[in-house]
Amino acid sequence: MKEEKVFKDPVHKYIYVQDKTIWDLINTREFQRLRRIRQLGTSFLTFHGAEHSRFSHSLGVYEITRKIISQFERNRYEDWPQEERLLCLCAALLHDLGHGPFSHSIEKAFNTHHEEWSCRIVLGDTEVNEVLRRVSPDFPKHVAGVICKSYNKEIVVSLVSSQLDADRMDYLLRDAYFTGVNYGTFDLERILRVVRPYKGHIVVKESGMHAVEDYLMSRYQMYWQVYFHPVTRSAEILLQKIFQRAKHLFEEQYSFGFMLPPILSLLENRLTVDDYFLLDEAVMQTVLMFWCSEKDPVLADLCSRFLNRRLLKYTTMEKPSHALLQRVNSALLDAGFDPDSYLEVDFPSDQSYDIYRPGESDEKLPILLLDNKEGLTEISHKSDIVRSISGIHIGSYHLYYPEELLERMNQTEYTDVAELLNKRK
Amino acid sequence: MKEEKVFKDPVHKYIYVQDKTIWDLINTREFQRLRRIRQLGTSFLTFHGAEHSRFSHSLGVYEITRKIISQFERNRYEDWPQEERLLCLCAALLHDLGHGPFSHSIEKAFNTHHEEWSCRIVLGDTEVNEVLRRVSPDFPKHVAGVICKSYNKEIVVSLVSSQLDADRMDYLLRDAYFTGVNYGTFDLERILRVVRPYKGHIVVKESGMHAVEDYLMSRYQMYWQVYFHPVTRSAEILLQKIFQRAKHLFEEQYSFGFMLPPILSLLENRLTVDDYFLLDEAVMQTVLMFWCSEKDPVLADLCSRFLNRRLLKYTTMEKPSHALLQRVNSALLDAGFDPDSYLEVDFPSDQSYDIYRPGESDEKLPILLLDNKEGLTEISHKSDIVRSISGIHIGSYHLYYPEELLERMNQTEYTDVAELLNKRK
Amino acid sequence: MKEEKVFKDPVHKYIYVQDKTIWDLINTREFQRLRRIRQLGTSFLTFHGAEHSRFSHSLGVYEITRKIISQFERNRYEDWPQEERLLCLCAALLHDLGHGPFSHSIEKAFNTHHEEWSCRIVLGDTEVNEVLRRVSPDFPKHVAGVICKSYNKEIVVSLVSSQLDADRMDYLLRDAYFTGVNYGTFDLERILRVVRPYKGHIVVKESGMHAVEDYLMSRYQMYWQVYFHPVTRSAEILLQKIFQRAKHLFEEQYSFGFMLPPILSLLENRLTVDDYFLLDEAVMQTVLMFWCSEKDPVLADLCSRFLNRRLLKYTTMEKPSHALLQRVNSALLDAGFDPDSYLEVDFPSDQSYDIYRPGESDEKLPILLLDNKEGLTEISHKSDIVRSISGIHIGSYHLYYPEELLERMNQTEYTDVAELLNKRK
Amino acid sequence: MKEEKVFKDPVHKYIYVQDKTIWDLINTREFQRLRRIRQLGTSFLTFHGAEHSRFSHSLGVYEITRKIISQFERNRYEDWPQEERLLCLCAALLHDLGHGPFSHSIEKAFNTHHEEWSCRIVLGDTEVNEVLRRVSPDFPKHVAGVICKSYNKEIVVSLVSSQLDADRMDYLLRDAYFTGVNYGTFDLERILRVVRPYKGHIVVKESGMHAVEDYLMSRYQMYWQVYFHPVTRSAEILLQKIFQRAKHLFEEQYSFGFMLPPILSLLENRLTVDDYFLLDEAVMQTVLMFWCSEKDPVLADLCSRFLNRRLLKYTTMEKPSHALLQRVNSALLDAGFDPDSYLEVDFPSDQSYDIYRPGESDEKLPILLLDNKEGLTEISHKSDIVRSISGIHIGSYHLYYPEELLERMNQTEYTDVAELLNKRK
Repeated sequence: MKEEKVFKDPVHKYIYVQDKTIWDLINTREFQRLRRIRQLGTSFLTFHGAEHSRFSHSLGVYEITRKIISQFERNRYEDWPQEERLLCLCAALLHDLGHGPFSHSIEKAFNTHHEEWSCRIVLGDTEVNEVLRRVSPDFPKHVAGVICKSYNKEIVVSLVSSQLDADRMDYLLRDAYFTGVNYGTFDLERILRVVRPYKGHIVVKESGMHAVEDYLMSRYQMYWQVYFHPVTRSAEILLQKIFQRAKHLFEEQYSFGFMLPPILSLLENRLTVDDYFLLDEAVMQTVLMFWCSEKDPVLADLCSRFLNRRLLKYTTMEKPSHALLQRVNSALLDAGFDPDSYLEVDFPSDQSYDIYRPGESDEKLPILLLDNKEGLTEISHKSDIVRSISGIHIGSYHLYYPEELLERMNQTEYTDVAELLNKRK
Repeated sequence: MKEEKVFKDPVHKYIYVQDKTIWDLINTREFQRLRRIRQLGTSFLTFHGAEHSRFSHSLGVYEITRKIISQFERNRYEDWPQEERLLCLCAALLHDLGHGPFSHSIEKAFNTHHEEWSCRIVLGDTEVNEVLRRVSPDFPKHVAGVICKSYNKEIVVSLVSSQLDADRMDYLLRDAYFTGVNYGTFDLERILRVVRPYKGHIVVKESGMHAVEDYLMSRYQMYWQVYFHPVTRSAEILLQKIFQRAKHLFEEQYSFGFMLPPILSLLENRLTVDDYFLLDEAVMQTVLMFWCSEKDPVLADLCSRFLNRRLLKYTTMEKPSHALLQRVNSALLDAGFDPDSYLEVDFPSDQSYDIYRPGESDEKLPILLLDNKEGLTEISHKSDIVRSISGIHIGSYHLYYPEELLERMNQTEYTDVAELLNKRK
Repeated sequence: MKEEKVFKDPVHKYIYVQDKTIWDLINTREFQRLRRIRQLGTSFLTFHGAEHSRFSHSLGVYEITRKIISQFERNRYEDWPQEERLLCLCAALLHDLGHGPFSHSIEKAFNTHHEEWSCRIVLGDTEVNEVLRRVSPDFPKHVAGVICKSYNKEIVVSLVSSQLDADRMDYLLRDAYFTGVNYGTFDLERILRVVRPYKGHIVVKESGMHAVEDYLMSRYQMYWQVYFHPVTRSAEILLQKIFQRAKHLFEEQYSFGFMLPPILSLLENRLTVDDYFLLDEAVMQTVLMFWCSEKDPVLADLCSRFLNRRLLKYTTMEKPSHALLQRVNSALLDAGFDPDSYLEVDFPSDQSYDIYRPGESDEKLPILLLDNKEGLTEISHKSDIVRSISGIHIGSYHLYYPEELLERMNQTEYTDVAELLNKRK
Repeated sequence: MKEEKVFKDPVHKYIYVQDKTIWDLINTREFQRLRRIRQLGTSFLTFHGAEHSRFSHSLGVYEITRKIISQFERNRYEDWPQEERLLCLCAALLHDLGHGPFSHSIEKAFNTHHEEWSCRIVLGDTEVNEVLRRVSPDFPKHVAGVICKSYNKEIVVSLVSSQLDADRMDYLLRDAYFTGVNYGTFDLERILRVVRPYKGHIVVKESGMHAVEDYLMSRYQMYWQVYFHPVTRSAEILLQKIFQRAKHLFEEQYSFGFMLPPILSLLENRLTVDDYFLLDEAVMQTVLMFWCSEKDPVLADLCSRFLNRRLLKYTTMEKPSHALLQRVNSALLDAGFDPDSYLEVDFPSDQSYDIYRPGESDEKLPILLLDNKEGLTEISHKSDIVRSISGIHIGSYHLYYPEELLERMNQTEYTDVAELLNKRK
């Protein structure tokens, strides 16, 4: 490019684009579509500022990757494979390309996987694919390989996907910024200064251990304060219930009063890359809005609750017994609610977010410290604080139910259920 | 309310709700709808962080108003009519209730007015109206009066709508925060300390003059850096062209391949409050997306340009002569573009944003300084800097056109046009 | 006061003074003296921004206390003894009044205690005492009682001095701000919202547990990143060595080439309140500067090292054996350095800063959570993260020595010492 | 250097040192002395956070210069003379080396000039000179040349000293940070991106005009809100009065009860570079403190006022007539105050700070915009806002006098004076 381009960004101040390929990728229709997918799904119903899109996050991941590589180049580290630069940048930019609207709920209800979709879009007949092919015919395959972690150089994969990757570093800072909580802030500039390539890994200089501790503590707090927030979970559960109900109705050959093509493909389980392009949050919200008038009362009610933010209430509890759940089921049925659509027991750590737990069967590459004698040690062996955090399994069970249950149910008959619900936090 | 409720807000840290009425208003479906309308319309196409909604802005306006009133009460100012507290808070919260999707473009194309719609919603058969009526039967009318500036106490109106109102103070800070530019920041806390009620007006202690200067300079910069940004304008113009084309097609009884009910009502010019509820940005974007496949090539092309961010290019110029415009028209026609849909000459100050210009026929109440001898002076009489800013009429003409024009047109025939477009900034 | 006064403060934005007594206290010569004592002693030699004074910190502690009490009053909590307001504010403002220059080093070398001096100044013939007596004859005694923790109401003492007191909350935020590290930031506004008076204690609503965790994690990081920083410690040790040498010379009746009255009183161990007023960092630095030319070469050299920031180097190690220390001693002596003045083994947790360790013989009141059933629980029983942090005893031994040692000593004779020093971090 | 070194800095996050020469300069005793000189002189008496030193500012100026040059090198601008890099960095770092304690007051009272002293230190028998000579024998002379603006390449001088130099950019940001006012913040990163070397000048790309406007507006506000603050001026005036009195007493052969060598040299007007090294704010404050007990009552009283912050009061007024001043003089004399020591009429723009006024006999190089056609234009020809600001001559006269005057003077005799003083702001 003749001249570097910049984007104004609230988190990184500016995002610098220096390669024509990156510029062209940003301008593809598939990448622009990410403007229509919120980064945090339903979190905006808990934190009203969290309305930022995956578009801005993707630019942020790209920018952090660019900064790391540029530091590697400036210091002329021998262990850095310079020829991988553009591949890293493209994979960083495109890693979230396959996210659909409200991913967490959709993936659960329809068993889709956003990484798989990212690869399908990269490899399919798309503008993104065309731009990548201009680099070299094999380039789309390499990019897809990095995104799906099958690329054969760990050092490349780990920049985009590891326990200390550009993805997490950007989303912690960005989500903290847009929600307004200050738990997610850590010293990015310092971390950038202490990571380096070393024998095929990305490692951290031992003197940077405290900065990494701070990063991991921020992550820990963000998970519990933001990502696992029970109100956000309540909205996600509602969405899942909506999709399950729609799927059920579809399988029962219910005739929908309102339908849009990409949603139909989703229900038919035959989404193409072209359909997927149409599947954004605007379409999803539009369908939810018109379904508020569906003749199926359950679907209509669930959609209306979601749209007007009348979410399911929750109560915090120990792991519930089968007997107790049966009682709640009965109470719901007696009050006129179908438990399949109006009851959920949720345990946060079931979710796809992860806390740093080295040693567990975690697919993410761990954080390695490099000491003066050139030895590598997984960080929790050196840091008491990391060891402490990674051993903690907080999280209690939450039971979600419609607010009206308490009024409608027979409180004398269901004293046990009433007691459970009344002690709600 | 038993206990005050809080919302986490990135701009004000927390938003405090202490009245049941406010809490209930926030939970109405009409207010929740504001989550689906972006605060800055098309600005997110220029500043990708600007994805925040009118919901968060409305809470912010409420919060600033609450802080001002709470300061008035704490200081027991005699000139403050305490009985107007709840009215002010409700009007502050609801003043933007009538905003539709991409208001600026829609209002221009369909001649609607958001303030009018705010009042229709407040007075109509809505959940908001019901909550307000619980305060007193006349209360909705009073709230509408404040929003439409017909309420008979200037002091109440001016908190919500004047040159130094809670609305502007919130949007400058909020838009600066979400775009990431730091032009819009000023010392809110200091301004809150220097405003006070005085003989029916809201005035500023003279010692606070510099803080107000700083606020006005921030506003000045925000207008030129953000609100009048030519790329944002380009997107707004594209939307207007889309709506004009759709209106034109509708009038010609074109049969749309895709249509949604509220859009139809809009085209038929018979929007009801119920239709209006459905008219959010999700619906609008969904229609734009499906119109990309309309058989009318102009509509399809314009929609696709908007959705995939292939905006019209612009060139900066002196006021163009009629002759020159005719030449551009011809060049467009020869290149196969309908000038009605692909050409626009724009002059920023035509727009609805306003710069502080005391004395001009501005409906907004001016800023008054209160000196030690209890005299009131309009600020530009005391502040050189305000006088300087308010006298400035920057702004040049921008001519918007499709990027392909340069390639497609006959450059030998249209050397004058080519020269004009080539010197583009 | 006719009108509230404000101070612009970088940490709290503004500090509000609403009581004549507070205003008068700030204007006493004893309180103004705090402008001449740095908050963080020698830390400015590590973090050059850390040049802020105890004056600004004292205002900050006052402001946080004011905010807490004002929240108590606004919510009309019955368990809050309203009559104690002014006492709390005065104690908060004055609690650090007795700090001398470079307190940590001076207190160690001369066995003084700043809290004791705070009380002597409050009770002595001072302007502060005069202002306090105007409130009531017993008032100075009550203020001294709160500062020295002998006052008979725990709730009053704990606002100023406990594990979650206004003192710590201000210094973490302030020290983070001025050093520029971002470890010390936590959500003050949220903590202020969740503390409340309860049966004679200051407690935290259980829902505020995560905010307190975040505060304790910040504190943990600040201790290891800032307060225990080995370079800062090196400067403190150098000062101690200087004072010890001066004391030794004084006891040996050495005739000082330069002396100032308050330093003489300090050496003679007969400091009066009047002398103490003169003992600020300007005087101390002036003496250190002129002592660079003392004829005693050790004193002159130590002072010159401190002033020109040629600090002792350090090496990190396991707890050193007596034999090893003897070897280092010999190496120093052979190289011409008196070990008493040029060698120190330091272990951070020996210091007066403390980490949250409930249960240990800690004089600070612990943090209590108040649950919905009105039960009180010490926080580490509910929070895994607090339990984890409080169990950690990091900290390694540091051996401080003059940089020249390595060059000057016989490396063949002292291979063990050379090896120890060469592996320095 | 083997490895780049960093300083943690609150304003720039980190300051990067990559050259051994810079590292060695920072560690000289003359540069370390700047830790003992406050950046803003007496401003800490108005803004208690403003306790930062010239040491941290000097590092900041160096860092901004380093960033600008590094951008020039990254873009391989041909107009940038690469061989001047180290010279620029050294001059940036050392430009304030000659500042004494409370420079403004001292320079006025003793007619010294800090730039001259910077050069004397650079050229004298100092550690700084020694480090610079290691680069080349002529190097100290070149550095002094840049500092005193006699060096023959404008482009080098203008980085350190022009209307848009690293010096001003750092002090605006730094002073805003430490005082806590937010007037001084502007988008440094954007300005760094739009400056470039062009035909021997440092110029600004035209598209960066708004960023420069914002910088100039920040500067404007900082001057009026911070640098010209009447309370700060009051403290400066008091210091001048103290120095004048001391000089007068010295000339009268008054025998001082307390004296320190560098102060004596100052009074004798025979300061050497060695004396100058000793002349820091600690020494100055120590002298002021002990002079509180001088037998000359005027000197003792003035010093005590300064030290305990009992500053002169002020009244704002139109330019006072000679007759009126005579009346104030008489009133002072009658009340027992020597007008020479207790009265001052001050007009801010007399001061050494400057506002951007292109065209006036200003030694600072103006700001040039570079347009697409490679033309250079002084910014006020293109920017209405700059033209507006630079034309403004605000500033009113302030008359400073002792607070006790009003009580002590005969109000019936001096009704005119009483009226003047009573209307004080």
